[in-house]
Amino acid sequence: MKSFFSPESVAVIGASDRPLKGGHVILKNLRSLGYAGKVYPVNPRLGEVQGWRAYPSLREVPGPVETAVIIVPREKVPEAMGQAAEKGVRSVIVATAGFSDAGDERGLALHAEVARIAQAAPFRMMGPNSIGTIDTHSGFITGITSHEKLPPGHVAMFGQSGMFASGFANHIRSHGRFALSKVACLGNKLDVDELDMIDYLAEDEETKVVGMYFEGLSDGRGFLDAARKLASKKPVVVLKSGRTEAGRRAAAGHTGTLAGADAIYSGAFRQAGLIRADGLEDFFDRLEVFDRCPVPKGNRLAVVSITGVGCVLTADAVSDSNLRFAELSKETLGDMRSVVPDWAPIRNPVDMWAAIERHGVEPAYQVLCQAALQDQGVDALMVIFTLIEECAFDAATVLAQLRIAHPDKPIVAAFLGGEAKLEQQWRKDFSHAGLPAYASVRRAVVALDALAGRIDQIGDNQRLCCGLS
Amino acid sequence: MKSFFSPESVAVIGASDRPLKGGHVILKNLRSLGYAGKVYPVNPRLGEVQGWRAYPSLREVPGPVETAVIIVPREKVPEAMGQAAEKGVRSVIVATAGFSDAGDERGLALHAEVARIAQAAPFRMMGPNSIGTIDTHSGFITGITSHEKLPPGHVAMFGQSGMFASGFANHIRSHGRFALSKVACLGNKLDVDELDMIDYLAEDEETKVVGMYFEGLSDGRGFLDAARKLASKKPVVVLKSGRTEAGRRAAAGHTGTLAGADAIYSGAFRQAGLIRADGLEDFFDRLEVFDRCPVPKGNRLAVVSITGVGCVLTADAVSDSNLRFAELSKETLGDMRSVVPDWAPIRNPVDMWAAIERHGVEPAYQVLCQAALQDQGVDALMVIFTLIEECAFDAATVLAQLRIAHPDKPIVAAFLGGEAKLEQQWRKDFSHAGLPAYASVRRAVVALDALAGRIDQIGDNQRLCCGLS
Repeated sequence: MKSFFSPESVAVIGASDRPLKGGHVILKNLRSLGYAGKVYPVNPRLGEVQGWRAYPSLREVPGPVETAVIIVPREKVPEAMGQAAEKGVRSVIVATAGFSDAGDERGLALHAEVARIAQAAPFRMMGPNSIGTIDTHSGFITGITSHEKLPPGHVAMFGQSGMFASGFANHIRSHGRFALSKVACLGNKLDVDELDMIDYLAEDEETKVVGMYFEGLSDGRGFLDAARKLASKKPVVVLKSGRTEAGRRAAAGHTGTLAGADAIYSGAFRQAGLIRADGLEDFFDRLEVFDRCPVPKGNRLAVVSITGVGCVLTADAVSDSNLRFAELSKETLGDMRSVVPDWAPIRNPVDMWAAIERHGVEPAYQVLCQAALQDQGVDALMVIFTLIEECAFDAATVLAQLRIAHPDKPIVAAFLGGEAKLEQQWRKDFSHAGLPAYASVRRAVVALDALAGRIDQIGDNQRLCCGLS
Repeated sequence: MKSFFSPESVAVIGASDRPLKGGHVILKNLRSLGYAGKVYPVNPRLGEVQGWRAYPSLREVPGPVETAVIIVPREKVPEAMGQAAEKGVRSVIVATAGFSDAGDERGLALHAEVARIAQAAPFRMMGPNSIGTIDTHSGFITGITSHEKLPPGHVAMFGQSGMFASGFANHIRSHGRFALSKVACLGNKLDVDELDMIDYLAEDEETKVVGMYFEGLSDGRGFLDAARKLASKKPVVVLKSGRTEAGRRAAAGHTGTLAGADAIYSGAFRQAGLIRADGLEDFFDRLEVFDRCPVPKGNRLAVVSITGVGCVLTADAVSDSNLRFAELSKETLGDMRSVVPDWAPIRNPVDMWAAIERHGVEPAYQVLCQAALQDQGVDALMVIFTLIEECAFDAATVLAQLRIAHPDKPIVAAFLGGEAKLEQQWRKDFSHAGLPAYASVRRAVVALDALAGRIDQIGDNQRLCCGLS
């Protein structure tokens, strides 16, 4: 499996000099991500592509080739695979689509042919219809849409869809949500499938959090056994959506069947210690919190909010979760009183507006958050901001400072209304500080709830988050 | 009630020349929003504030004053109210906090005093603890945090919290979500409450969609009667969160009670034809779709998606909704086939990747969306985009063009992954085009589901959206 992520050499069969072609973009991406291995473009018509010498076929490539990416018209895929077998490559990624995914007669025939070749070949194969893998540490990438440099990180994600190495990876980087370690798009899963990925990522030292997406499983029991082992080591967030068939059934109104099957999946995931996400936003939300926060020692939450609405919305979200509000100690209440005027009540969730009016925004947040974190009865802190000019300050730095003294307590921000421009800036600041920031209090609570859900599953040595370990 | 939104004159009792003070910001905002009425700052120490002549007290103001905003320390509020009564103002907004909201002894005593004065006075009162109202059409505003010019629109929102005239109004404008007509922060609701607002907005011609937030109601039956009447005329989205007491009970683990009471609210809302939002993001999501889309004639949805993941995630979301997938006619399938290669299946939701590869991004979207909209069996269209450079085009213009021929069919966009910068630009473009765009397929489906939920409640003359009427 290592050959799919950090090979010493790669041949791109179907390399192109036309900017929009996948066989061109892959090479551009290898440059952008700084892949240091040997690169061999293969194209019978070209002498050089993007500074790399090109070869008419794989046979002509001098020296060994560890990995081959095949991106030629579907009719030519079997031949290219034959060359790869002959050359003795260790792994093949077939990017070309139009096999079992197309479903036409010719596609199914080619599928059978490709399957026969793969079975006899000495290499492992990803795909067909896989736009491949990304490894942010080695700089290896076979995605066919353009990428800027991706910062190396500790979150691996995979699924059968090409979106993981394209739109989703773009989203995660450009929104500063978390940093990826490895990405794999499994495509039609003719050979490499979820089980291979699970076993590989369980041992991968660069990966500390795993996110996986799938629509259907061929080997449910095998999957659950492997996933249970992985989940005992690393948090695993699963986005399982209905298979296309199920989607069509749903469309026809047979929701009962679908919901039933879906509930079975949920139960199995829970038993295996997998964390099930509710849609794509939630999938990223949960991966972010696991990447950036330690697992807390308990489920007792303190909340500091600029507004009463934030407190009430949080209370609602908490009541739907397994979190509960921490009971603040007398000492904590005393510390908080130093900024809260006498007439204003102090209770958790803390409505801090009166403290802001009296002492200014930054001192109020600083004192109240510090007091909450120092409380032995508080396991996690959620801080609610409204992003208007009057209330703007360098909040990410203040919270990052407080985290130093409390590395075992997750700190999560929620943005409740305000200016889009400030939100962009704050999101960037929080991302740099390695603090999760959510666009709603509900999403922040759901993420913290998932985090606290790992309490019983792990030992203290696994508690610290990626960012701090 | 009109005096709270478009008075001919306003006195600001507690006007200030210090930039951070509410009594300063209100005046600044009146300038920013272009309020054309008479403005009388009241402050015994100042001769002029921001170009308006100031008066030592309300008595000295020449001519009639329709509305007074009181923003002085709480001890001085009763006296200011007395002046307002003497002057014969028609409405008073008390921005000062620290009454029943504080809960201290002095606060409760002042509350009683203010209540006594209000009852005897000839004016209606909003507050105390109300940071007031915004009317984007008249330019009248009493919010105490800074605002740029707010574009006049057709969505009214109110709640007891000050957030509506501050962070939430900022959020809605700066994210280009929809345009507001009127905003009211009711504060402690000593006099003006939800019922007054409901009755007023039912008749308000500038308001075509209503969003309301509350935590508790003193007159549940009266509320439901009034709300039912309002909902028969205009879509009403309600964000009801747990009362603070309920929040605290929730914190202590008494979730059963809370959930029970909450289910009763949900049932009552449904009977009254109110649309209940699930959290703040959803509240804005639904207001946006009602502002920008016509209510469809049925619940049959067509989906055009750049990726199969989008299709499957949509199928899941649709199966949780009352929408269903439209069955595409033979004619539609034929039209779509003109851009989809023969080997690729065409079904709804439409995975368009093969069409993009063959014909380019813009032609593929144009042809497929047009074909879907022309189908008699399609009531609404959802279009899924991934915001990467390779797939970028002027989608807002293409969809806005298609809408011209199909003004009775809602068109909603969902962004599935991609670059943050492109997302900002696209969001702006869609906002200018008056098309709703959501950050996830699930949110887009939930919004469309709410829209289709109005089908049975309205006549054809109420079907068209604000943007087109």
